[in-house]
Amino acid sequence: MSEYAVELQRKGIRLGLVPTMGALHDGHLSLLRLLDDRCGIKAVSIFVNPIQFGEGEDFGSYPRNEENDLALLAEAGCELVFAPNVNDMYPYGFQTYVNVEELSKPLCGQYRPEHFRGVATIVLRLFNLTQCLIAAFGLKDYQQAMVIKRMVNDLNLAVELIFGETVREKDGLALSSRNAFLKLDERELAKLIPQSLNWAKNEAVKGETNCSRILKGMAELLQSKPGIKIQYLEAVNPDTLKPQDKVQNGVQVLLAVYIGKTRLIDNIRVNNKLLNC
Amino acid sequence: MSEYAVELQRKGIRLGLVPTMGALHDGHLSLLRLLDDRCGIKAVSIFVNPIQFGEGEDFGSYPRNEENDLALLAEAGCELVFAPNVNDMYPYGFQTYVNVEELSKPLCGQYRPEHFRGVATIVLRLFNLTQCLIAAFGLKDYQQAMVIKRMVNDLNLAVELIFGETVREKDGLALSSRNAFLKLDERELAKLIPQSLNWAKNEAVKGETNCSRILKGMAELLQSKPGIKIQYLEAVNPDTLKPQDKVQNGVQVLLAVYIGKTRLIDNIRVNNKLLNC
Repeated sequence: MSEYAVELQRKGIRLGLVPTMGALHDGHLSLLRLLDDRCGIKAVSIFVNPIQFGEGEDFGSYPRNEENDLALLAEAGCELVFAPNVNDMYPYGFQTYVNVEELSKPLCGQYRPEHFRGVATIVLRLFNLTQCLIAAFGLKDYQQAMVIKRMVNDLNLAVELIFGETVREKDGLALSSRNAFLKLDERELAKLIPQSLNWAKNEAVKGETNCSRILKGMAELLQSKPGIKIQYLEAVNPDTLKPQDKVQNGVQVLLAVYIGKTRLIDNIRVNNKLLNC
Repeated sequence: MSEYAVELQRKGIRLGLVPTMGALHDGHLSLLRLLDDRCGIKAVSIFVNPIQFGEGEDFGSYPRNEENDLALLAEAGCELVFAPNVNDMYPYGFQTYVNVEELSKPLCGQYRPEHFRGVATIVLRLFNLTQCLIAAFGLKDYQQAMVIKRMVNDLNLAVELIFGETVREKDGLALSSRNAFLKLDERELAKLIPQSLNWAKNEAVKGETNCSRILKGMAELLQSKPGIKIQYLEAVNPDTLKPQDKVQNGVQVLLAVYIGKTRLIDNIRVNNKLLNC
């Protein structure tokens, strides 16, 4: 990969990258489409990164289906797939980590204390290995997107970032590789997640400015049927991820819930004006 | 700097970098000479990096003499000087740090717990800003050299490293910007540092295999006159920096001492064969 990257650079060909953990769905493919006409080679990396999973998390059971992934990517016009193995990426003695300190702490970071350190480290390394000049990430993983944006800025990386809107099922559920874990009744319950987010958005548009009231209403909606356990549900400043009391110029509402053993995250921008950004 | 780096890359010109904190001496200039014929543009960065100094350390009083530095560099054939200011490098909100975990802990790391995190972070950023393809560091800062080598490897950086031997005064004292702090009697005492290191090297060549005995003899020599306070004095594996009992295939002997208020470090490779590497 490194040698090929040097060759591309010598030829002046821009590489665009979508870093993924495989188990691809249309969310990933939509990011690949965002790279159209913005680079000379569209690349996807597939790597289930062990250091971003905590103990007891689903590293072992995370869905893997490389054959299907490669077929989807070929069809989608992806020109390069980089799929290293764990031992090549983390040889004996590996010990260098990148930490975006403040943005990694709240929200998911409270429950996954080393998660974003693992994400930042692997993303930086994938950038370096592929020498990509543009990279696309999905806003479904909102906190991750903010961590990476901050890292690129702080470390003076010459990588342009583009962020893709969350791709959703017809009933609003955000596409996620982990949706595959949901049983039929759990999948039915999962509808409540986008319903609650949309409810929050509409409340704000109707004039509700108080974040606590919005979050309380969302929690009631999520728990209107038994089966959803809220891990966190917060309204934060979209850039700093610090908790906000008032909707004011826009807050990001983020949540993580468990449905059975499956942990799902989602988020939405909430604003007192109809204008959504 | 970033824009110029992109321009150089477009033209296929390799930039070589010597990162420094200024107060340049022949140690720095020898590193610049190592870049001869290995790159298209020889660059030096001058930046006294606040995040590698701990509280109560000498960030404020670290010697600064940009005018003299620029004159020396011009004479030495340096073609580009990058000297950013602190506020540009660390704007409000900066929060991303690189940590080479194990190698940063022993030796200097015991007494300067965030030092190598600061070093790794600024070096990575200088590499990214200048897009250098080759960089030179001095072996006087041996632990720093190992930390940077590990970082380059672990983060898959496309930067070739070269390490320069320590440049010494006639009496053996390693060149250091901090030597300027030494009073006349302190400068006289400082001779004992290279004398003790050379004594260690010779003991091993003569057949001494026991590190404790070597270190004990060095400590006696360093303290043969009053005025030198040993902070640490250790024999370690040259790659892992882990303490060693036997000289075997070579150990790195490193020390930090205080002479008055001035902290000085130095090191030497110690081997039972005359061959030194």
